[in-house]
Amino acid sequence: MAEVIDVADPADPRLDDFRDLNSVDRRPDLPSGKGLVIAEGVLVVQRMLASRFQARAMLGTDRRLAELEADLAGVDAPYYRADADVMAEVVGFHLNRGVLAAASRPPELTVAQVLDGPRTVAVLEGVNDHENLGSIFRNAAGLGVDAVVFGVGCADPLYRRAVRVSMGHALLVPYAWTQAWPADLEMLRDNGFRLLAMTPDPSAHSLAEAMTDVADEKVAILVGAEGPGLTEHAMRASDVRVRIPMSRGTDSLNVATAAALAFYERARLAP
Amino acid sequence: MAEVIDVADPADPRLDDFRDLNSVDRRPDLPSGKGLVIAEGVLVVQRMLASRFQARAMLGTDRRLAELEADLAGVDAPYYRADADVMAEVVGFHLNRGVLAAASRPPELTVAQVLDGPRTVAVLEGVNDHENLGSIFRNAAGLGVDAVVFGVGCADPLYRRAVRVSMGHALLVPYAWTQAWPADLEMLRDNGFRLLAMTPDPSAHSLAEAMTDVADEKVAILVGAEGPGLTEHAMRASDVRVRIPMSRGTDSLNVATAAALAFYERARLAP
Repeated sequence: MAEVIDVADPADPRLDDFRDLNSVDRRPDLPSGKGLVIAEGVLVVQRMLASRFQARAMLGTDRRLAELEADLAGVDAPYYRADADVMAEVVGFHLNRGVLAAASRPPELTVAQVLDGPRTVAVLEGVNDHENLGSIFRNAAGLGVDAVVFGVGCADPLYRRAVRVSMGHALLVPYAWTQAWPADLEMLRDNGFRLLAMTPDPSAHSLAEAMTDVADEKVAILVGAEGPGLTEHAMRASDVRVRIPMSRGTDSLNVATAAALAFYERARLAP
Repeated sequence: MAEVIDVADPADPRLDDFRDLNSVDRRPDLPSGKGLVIAEGVLVVQRMLASRFQARAMLGTDRRLAELEADLAGVDAPYYRADADVMAEVVGFHLNRGVLAAASRPPELTVAQVLDGPRTVAVLEGVNDHENLGSIFRNAAGLGVDAVVFGVGCADPLYRRAVRVSMGHALLVPYAWTQAWPADLEMLRDNGFRLLAMTPDPSAHSLAEAMTDVADEKVAILVGAEGPGLTEHAMRASDVRVRIPMSRGTDSLNVATAAALAFYERARLAP
């Protein structure tokens, strides 16, 4: 059981993992600094406790402690119990979710590790917005995508906002960074994956048609940044170009929404 | 052609439509105040100019004026040309989109008006987040939904952030507010619509199955707030309860994402 330690002094150095969460240069979740992973709220903290990210400390109210009691049974990390005002002084703003957990970053998984087992993976290029990244992890978890592979230009999935928007699934869905892009896409092909590149190009195959064709195969769904989309390099390294049928006179969809539609069709056609 | 008027004084009262856009109580887009509709950026301004929301003034840089030249040909409203610093002083923050347009609110459309013609409508209950609302309009436009009907508890689709996230489609996709909820759902039924209520309930019909069954009918897709979902009242007033097949151990999807999946399936099965 996590040891419960009451704290009344916001300056207590034991709370430094949670200090100044919004500061530009001192934030404890900056990879260039402490590099901690921060979970906010009961649900996300529960998911962190169930993940490979081992919590090293928690800070929360008494009420949240009660809600987390069952989850904390096997946890060997202190729960710093404080009231909302003390918490607000530590983190730098009023946090209505009432509880935080901090974990050190474990070693990153390799692409080979995350490809062992999965039948459906998402591959992201240039997704540099934390909210979109978090949404993609949430959609991946909900719609049966087994792992995420990052190409160049993506934001950090362990940034606090990405973890929050993902509802904690950024900590649970395995992911890995490629070392060479787009050359590492060959690793996917060598592992038997068909590479489907999402594009607004009207000459591409429609989503339902493309997913029907690959229903019996392992599939990697490539999505690029909103606006520019996938680079020509990534597009050329793929097997099939896939479009979502859209109404005339509209733009491409938000990248996380487009990804959700592809994940949904994959799950529908290859359950 | 819009008259171009150079302005160098941020205090110029002719710019009042654009003043203090982030202020809590003086914002010109507050329905309780001036009630203006504000479009930001070239694309959204273009869509406003093509909509029933008649721009009464624009404020922007010379560069954006050049980009909008063709769109301004038939427009009878002044374009206040200013540099970025003057604009920042007026609106209260640095606006990197470079151009704004303001329109008065025209009379609201009635439910009867927006139901005349459409085969597919979205009906929203309790969607009180401006970003989700904006995303739903963007998804509706892209995925073939003809109109939006609001039940109780929804946010204002003309709020600046909703308009921006919608990419301007909140100004183009017709919408109307119901007067009695959920009683007004009868109006949809009287107009030949089948009412499909989205729910995470595992006993509901799967999305693909439900949309196949109604492919030849007019359809209203009801979505509720994230978390609570549709109220029991709205659920009972519907014809079919519909679920998105989800992985075990995950939550419901974001409301705009769930709506997008329903819109997509509707467009796929009843193109």
